[in-house]
Amino acid sequence: MSYTLEQMRAVFCPRTVAVVGAPRSFKPGLVFLQALLDPGFKGKVFPINPNADEILGLKTYPSLSGIPERVDLAIILVGIEQVQNVIEECAQAGVRAAIVFTSGFGETGEPLGLQREREMVAAARAGSMRLVGPNCMGVYCPESGLAFFPSMPQVSGRVAFVSQSGSLSAFVTLMGRLRGMSFSKVVSIGNECDLSSTDFFDYLGNDNRTSIITAYLEGTRDGRTLLETLKKVSLKKPVIIWKAGFTSAGARAVSSHTGSLAGSESVWNSVFKQAGVIRAQNIEEMIDIATTFHYVPETVGRRIVIISGPGGPAVAAADALERGGLKLAELSPKSIEKLRTFIPAAGASLRNPIDLGVAPWGIISLYSDTLRVVDEDENVDATVLIGGGLNPSGQQEYLELMMELKKSLKKPCMLISLAGFVGDVEFCNKLQSAGFPLYTAPERALASYSEVVGYYEWRQDVGKCASS
Amino acid sequence: MSYTLEQMRAVFCPRTVAVVGAPRSFKPGLVFLQALLDPGFKGKVFPINPNADEILGLKTYPSLSGIPERVDLAIILVGIEQVQNVIEECAQAGVRAAIVFTSGFGETGEPLGLQREREMVAAARAGSMRLVGPNCMGVYCPESGLAFFPSMPQVSGRVAFVSQSGSLSAFVTLMGRLRGMSFSKVVSIGNECDLSSTDFFDYLGNDNRTSIITAYLEGTRDGRTLLETLKKVSLKKPVIIWKAGFTSAGARAVSSHTGSLAGSESVWNSVFKQAGVIRAQNIEEMIDIATTFHYVPETVGRRIVIISGPGGPAVAAADALERGGLKLAELSPKSIEKLRTFIPAAGASLRNPIDLGVAPWGIISLYSDTLRVVDEDENVDATVLIGGGLNPSGQQEYLELMMELKKSLKKPCMLISLAGFVGDVEFCNKLQSAGFPLYTAPERALASYSEVVGYYEWRQDVGKCASS
Repeated sequence: MSYTLEQMRAVFCPRTVAVVGAPRSFKPGLVFLQALLDPGFKGKVFPINPNADEILGLKTYPSLSGIPERVDLAIILVGIEQVQNVIEECAQAGVRAAIVFTSGFGETGEPLGLQREREMVAAARAGSMRLVGPNCMGVYCPESGLAFFPSMPQVSGRVAFVSQSGSLSAFVTLMGRLRGMSFSKVVSIGNECDLSSTDFFDYLGNDNRTSIITAYLEGTRDGRTLLETLKKVSLKKPVIIWKAGFTSAGARAVSSHTGSLAGSESVWNSVFKQAGVIRAQNIEEMIDIATTFHYVPETVGRRIVIISGPGGPAVAAADALERGGLKLAELSPKSIEKLRTFIPAAGASLRNPIDLGVAPWGIISLYSDTLRVVDEDENVDATVLIGGGLNPSGQQEYLELMMELKKSLKKPCMLISLAGFVGDVEFCNKLQSAGFPLYTAPERALASYSEVVGYYEWRQDVGKCASS
Repeated sequence: MSYTLEQMRAVFCPRTVAVVGAPRSFKPGLVFLQALLDPGFKGKVFPINPNADEILGLKTYPSLSGIPERVDLAIILVGIEQVQNVIEECAQAGVRAAIVFTSGFGETGEPLGLQREREMVAAARAGSMRLVGPNCMGVYCPESGLAFFPSMPQVSGRVAFVSQSGSLSAFVTLMGRLRGMSFSKVVSIGNECDLSSTDFFDYLGNDNRTSIITAYLEGTRDGRTLLETLKKVSLKKPVIIWKAGFTSAGARAVSSHTGSLAGSESVWNSVFKQAGVIRAQNIEEMIDIATTFHYVPETVGRRIVIISGPGGPAVAAADALERGGLKLAELSPKSIEKLRTFIPAAGASLRNPIDLGVAPWGIISLYSDTLRVVDEDENVDATVLIGGGLNPSGQQEYLELMMELKKSLKKPCMLISLAGFVGDVEFCNKLQSAGFPLYTAPERALASYSEVVGYYEWRQDVGKCASS
């Protein structure tokens, strides 16, 4: 890759940021400036606007040349006609990286837009400056305090997200948070006129603050380099890519969104397969898989026990398990003996799936007691538990029992909250903080788990081949 | 069908209910008795327990013969050894229908269990009594006030649910409520020793309080009759079936859950296709499709406009649209002219999908103004809107604008709430009450819409064939 670490540090962790074209009154652009004034950002911010002395209480400069310090990162919000001049000025002033939010370039499909991108890149290169965008939404990096908009979470985590869609980045961050994940670095790459998804994959692959990489892609300009990069990165950490635009309607939407060529599904599938990349079919699957990587350790196996109140979802779980190449664990006779001592015979089944029927309506502890026995069985690698209370007090009891039990659990346990996460954010947050991943359906848990175990097995196999 | 309307009325709308084997102390069974004491149930309740004079404040009878009135429905909670005697007593006393909650019958896989089912049915038939179950959880019918447990919604709706899984029925009711749907009749059919899914499909097909039928099935004892029945019912109203147990692990789980034979996927797919039944792959899809039928009128067409803030989900929506055989509507030049007057050019695309970029961050009304123009375009049949506010005040403004606009909208508009419905139950409830269906991803909305429009087209085609 051609970027330097200093350039990438300027993108994600700048000490000095110039916001060129900061609007005076409320426009979407002002949101990006407000985001930098959040307590999270530790560097210095220099708004640039020739028609204002002060914006949001910050001294405002008429142009870049008036700033008394070297600028690490320029955030460019000016109108399209002024972008080229601003880029040239930045490059001359030694700015290390610029993020061009402005749109109207290659994604318009007009030759002028593409030509403008080429001119920007040439001007940037002349000053060893790198560009993110255009037509993008910048960076979210809790470590440095860069954010898409005010009030974003300031907690750093292990998940990175590379996105060809701008405001999607913000949604994914929010969706991840609701599943108990925090992010290390999120970047909206827009038209990728200079720094591309490939560059960011390479960088994040080496970033020791990132252990899971997720991405939304619409296309790429250099499939070969992307493939070679992903091959290397996948050996270090899981890469989950949601690629959209495979139908003709989708490809048309891609072209007007970021000006990318969407490419054929078979070519992309082959890239994913060769590179050991996990393909997510949609945003929910991407979040589910990332969630599972986040909670489940590398030492996972394929023998699963399903513990359920309702019988239907247990059957669906068994289907999903087999479709994902997982196995219904055979409980040891000792475990079955133990279970028989406290699970009422009526309406229950001790064969895996363990169907508790309506018995836990009266005795919530049946869930945690069953899970305790199963977790200790050496024939079992992980569990899926479809349970919960019938009313708020039942839910509370379930929560307390599960949180207490989690302290002594040895194996991953995926919890299913069937009716979704509606209205029970606190309930979900507590279980997730205790270390349980939560899903809206057992099929989602098991499909994700299957991807996770498949990835770790693949990586081990590749490692063996390399060393033999 | 062999049932009488009087028998079905006894199952769903009994005036007198005997609860045989009502427990004195807290057991799951007591929950079913408590459910009948909710203000919702309008009939009379007679608990039967030889060891108690009073349970939950109700005079308790030692046996069925002591009850001074004819009993429409007996709810049977006694231990398996006593079930046969109780059934015989009920049949002799002229009870019209009995729901056998007790389990331990055919689902055990033991010959004794199956023999017990046959004996029960013989005893019931001798008295013209019908049986639901065994190994089931009863009925929820807000019209009469029958419920699975206390505090269930007392509002009647148009959706019915037939379930081979007991407590799943309660979850589906809850999940439907969260999507703005109420239910007409929900029945847990268990092992179906007498009344079967086929009987209930037939009955609900003629029930004028039901306009959408959903079902969770594990198997059937008489595929031919089921097919013939579904063929007739589907011509009257949509039937959405989630069938589980297609893998060998799933089939094994089915057999210990309700003792059914799961059957092969290809046979079931052929049944669904021949009968015009909509197949749901999982619980979430079943709820999504039912939601769409609930909100979308019969006069739907395939030309869709996608309006989006974030570009990525708009691309995913375009993909889902094409995969569902739907079309990106071509907006009329007049509409595009109108849109151009207020949508900022920067970062937006007026081609369908209409990509509003981050502009609505500053001006929320861009969503509603765009929707208003698109809704009036005669080239458009329905819209999908991926939007919302950036913060609570933005969400509030979005809510108010959309609720006001809904009054004048002529066509269905499906709203996407990307980060799920977490924590914003009231927000979702208000939009749904105004008449907007809500989904967690555009792919879900469009896949469901595709099923809905496909169903109505199929029904029209079949109607034409029949009349020509």
